[in-house]
Amino acid sequence: MKLYKKGSQESYTLGVFPTIELLERKPQIVKRVVVDSTITENRGYPKIKELCNLYHIPLTVHNQTIAKLSPKDNCFAVGIFNVYEDALMDDNHVVLVNPMDMGNLGTIIRTMTGFEYFNLAIIEPACDYFNPKVIRASMGSLFSIHIQRFKSFDDYYRKYPNHEFYPFMLKGAKNIHDLQTNKKHSLIFGNESKGLDDSYLKIGQSVFIPHSHLIDSLNLSQSIGIGLYHFSKDKFKDKKIL
Amino acid sequence: MKLYKKGSQESYTLGVFPTIELLERKPQIVKRVVVDSTITENRGYPKIKELCNLYHIPLTVHNQTIAKLSPKDNCFAVGIFNVYEDALMDDNHVVLVNPMDMGNLGTIIRTMTGFEYFNLAIIEPACDYFNPKVIRASMGSLFSIHIQRFKSFDDYYRKYPNHEFYPFMLKGAKNIHDLQTNKKHSLIFGNESKGLDDSYLKIGQSVFIPHSHLIDSLNLSQSIGIGLYHFSKDKFKDKKIL
Repeated sequence: MKLYKKGSQESYTLGVFPTIELLERKPQIVKRVVVDSTITENRGYPKIKELCNLYHIPLTVHNQTIAKLSPKDNCFAVGIFNVYEDALMDDNHVVLVNPMDMGNLGTIIRTMTGFEYFNLAIIEPACDYFNPKVIRASMGSLFSIHIQRFKSFDDYYRKYPNHEFYPFMLKGAKNIHDLQTNKKHSLIFGNESKGLDDSYLKIGQSVFIPHSHLIDSLNLSQSIGIGLYHFSKDKFKDKKIL
Repeated sequence: MKLYKKGSQESYTLGVFPTIELLERKPQIVKRVVVDSTITENRGYPKIKELCNLYHIPLTVHNQTIAKLSPKDNCFAVGIFNVYEDALMDDNHVVLVNPMDMGNLGTIIRTMTGFEYFNLAIIEPACDYFNPKVIRASMGSLFSIHIQRFKSFDDYYRKYPNHEFYPFMLKGAKNIHDLQTNKKHSLIFGNESKGLDDSYLKIGQSVFIPHSHLIDSLNLSQSIGIGLYHFSKDKFKDKKIL
């Protein structure tokens, strides 16, 4: 097994938890699972064995593979899978324009899963979401959502004429607190360092998250966390326990 | 100038932006500012010169100091300052119980500044908030807030009997969407990996942020971002532009 590079046909999960997520959500793409010989003490191991057995996925013990793919960390399991093309469902979307930071992207995917946004459009150029760093930061949530790349925002935009579009911008026209919707919507966020350019002011209803002038801006994953929390309020507000 | 270690009497900002924040917010603690000889092209440099001049702070060019304190990064300015003890104002507080991740802590401080929470209680054991990593991740926001360490949560708690306490917990008794307050309050968050233990269920009004069961929990900085966003709503909801 080679270290993952952009364009590889295979990628892998690093760690017991993301490997279980992979096996539970996308068993059909898993080629094999490799574990370290010390995994027997890990409480996730019975689950891995059970899932590999259920889906007839080869499970082998091979310490060198683990050491090679994860030289630094305590990693006990690796799930090797075929990368895949996916298509969005016509549900609420998150749209990331040119995300570049892999750790951030993973965190964002995890937060999306938390607030039941299961569809992510990525406008290129962008970092590679099959990189093991993204998968690890998402803690395997990547396998719970649909992701699709688009060559340009226009390509995406033309495909969903029925959506309400909310670009999040420092220059946004409306305070997020004044917005609520029950319609299908797309929450649009720019790049970590530059945000969205002014052309997005003309797309749908631009929105800002108010904050003090002591900071330039909230960071991207904070903004997305707050945006998703706000726009998914109706789904979650009546829950009596977590 | 030595590399910062826990217990050092001096720490430093790394970078032009945090150095300006230091000079603007806490000029009285600054001992000197050191810049790299290539800083002349940086658009923050005139501001640094102006502030050093205004407050009679020595400003020297010394590339080796910069290279030593920031070996990896493009860093053009360093502000050396005396670490200080601070005390909280009796205003709204954020309370972090045993925060350990310095990058997270910096991000949290920045978010606090964004939502105008200017007082942070840190319950020990905890990471060292004068470490340059924290300052850098806060982008200098550290100098805009009051921070105070407490030996135990009890020490903190007994000092603010007039506060409403909201411990954020997966087992929290109330959905955050059902809570609002105009009273002085303390938003309490646990450690990155363990959260708050069950003893906090008896403190004030415990609260949960509802999310799907596809994730175990939101991460700490996301939870704090959402908590602050929610509890500061009244301050920000009528803003018409950012």
